[in-house]
Amino acid sequence: MAGRTAVVLVSGGLDSAVVLAWMQREGFECIALTIDYGQRHHVELECARRLAAHASVREHLVQQIDLRAVGGSALTGSDPVPKDGASHGIPITYVPARNTLFLSLALGLAEARGARDIALGINAVDYSGYPDCRPAFLESFSATANLATRAGVEAAQQGHLAFHFHAPLLNLSKPQIIRLGDELGVDFARTSSCYDPLHDGSPCGQCDSCRIRAAGFASADLVDPRMR
Amino acid sequence: MAGRTAVVLVSGGLDSAVVLAWMQREGFECIALTIDYGQRHHVELECARRLAAHASVREHLVQQIDLRAVGGSALTGSDPVPKDGASHGIPITYVPARNTLFLSLALGLAEARGARDIALGINAVDYSGYPDCRPAFLESFSATANLATRAGVEAAQQGHLAFHFHAPLLNLSKPQIIRLGDELGVDFARTSSCYDPLHDGSPCGQCDSCRIRAAGFASADLVDPRMR
Repeated sequence: MAGRTAVVLVSGGLDSAVVLAWMQREGFECIALTIDYGQRHHVELECARRLAAHASVREHLVQQIDLRAVGGSALTGSDPVPKDGASHGIPITYVPARNTLFLSLALGLAEARGARDIALGINAVDYSGYPDCRPAFLESFSATANLATRAGVEAAQQGHLAFHFHAPLLNLSKPQIIRLGDELGVDFARTSSCYDPLHDGSPCGQCDSCRIRAAGFASADLVDPRMR
Repeated sequence: MAGRTAVVLVSGGLDSAVVLAWMQREGFECIALTIDYGQRHHVELECARRLAAHASVREHLVQQIDLRAVGGSALTGSDPVPKDGASHGIPITYVPARNTLFLSLALGLAEARGARDIALGINAVDYSGYPDCRPAFLESFSATANLATRAGVEAAQQGHLAFHFHAPLLNLSKPQIIRLGDELGVDFARTSSCYDPLHDGSPCGQCDSCRIRAAGFASADLVDPRMR
């Protein structure tokens, strides 16, 4: 793997911070891609900047695309983020086609930079019910990506796939992800998981994402530095 | 089809203008989506606005996403657009993962608006060699879209597909597209195909896209109002 370049989607959240550290340990030179899509939890963008700077990535691109005009999600609209821990099915924090869009941007960046590996922190265990965090989605996107691109066409002519997608957290529980991050030396103080942070950027402690994070640290028997 | 809403990708070029008219004739209420991605042929955005306004679409969303920071294409970078008509294979005007990105944006908008039909002007005949204008690409993206979304998951539970993709020009030649647009009453004066327009917005007449357009009008035995 030495010498290979990967594009890593880095949101500023806990999961993608672990993925970035994991890809670096695997020997990839990493390009971090962060999407500023008008999310109400804007503090995660600052976390992404700190994570990328600390990890000495080759490049950190923050791509802006305002999804507030699209709407359809509590994360980009005016609907309140649910805080009763009682959501079933796909929650209203789902953002329509978000991972398809983010992976499309990662794909274009990877092709333009000559990278052939793309990594993201999707997870199908504590995944809050999002359809675009399932293995079947990622497999399908991978097939699309290899048909969509110049690099994909050229590789197919030689009988192989151009682009490889890495989702190392896909089948891990939140406590397992946190333990893995701890082993990899991830500084969780530089990550933000909250969907609806307070004015000073600190987590609300009540949204689904805060609840899953807190339960994860408790199960992993570790202290969340954001909650000290 | 009456009463159904569709998202139509409208670039301001000739092909998508024909697709918009075609979808309206099919009875769809149309939402036009235009992507301002930092293309050098910025004049097409003004054409898209005029086309959408004239067609009385339900909504016209111009989504901005600057692909100049990504690069990898003569359409977003400083490399000159080729004008010798001699390109073979995939030309340098290819924009990495462009149609994957545009369809992702259309998909998110469609899901947020309750639309289940998405149309675009890709063409596999005079398609300039772009990989993301092939039928296999669109079929694969359709499968991905139906896995990626809440609407896709809910429809699958009832045994059908949520999203349907329309590419009515896929197997038409350029003269056929122009004749179809003429039948549908498309005002070609409101469209721009040139990759590298002059300062006043008029076409260069020499890039691949201008050459294909000129040959198409000649074969269709029609006069291009942009060239008067």
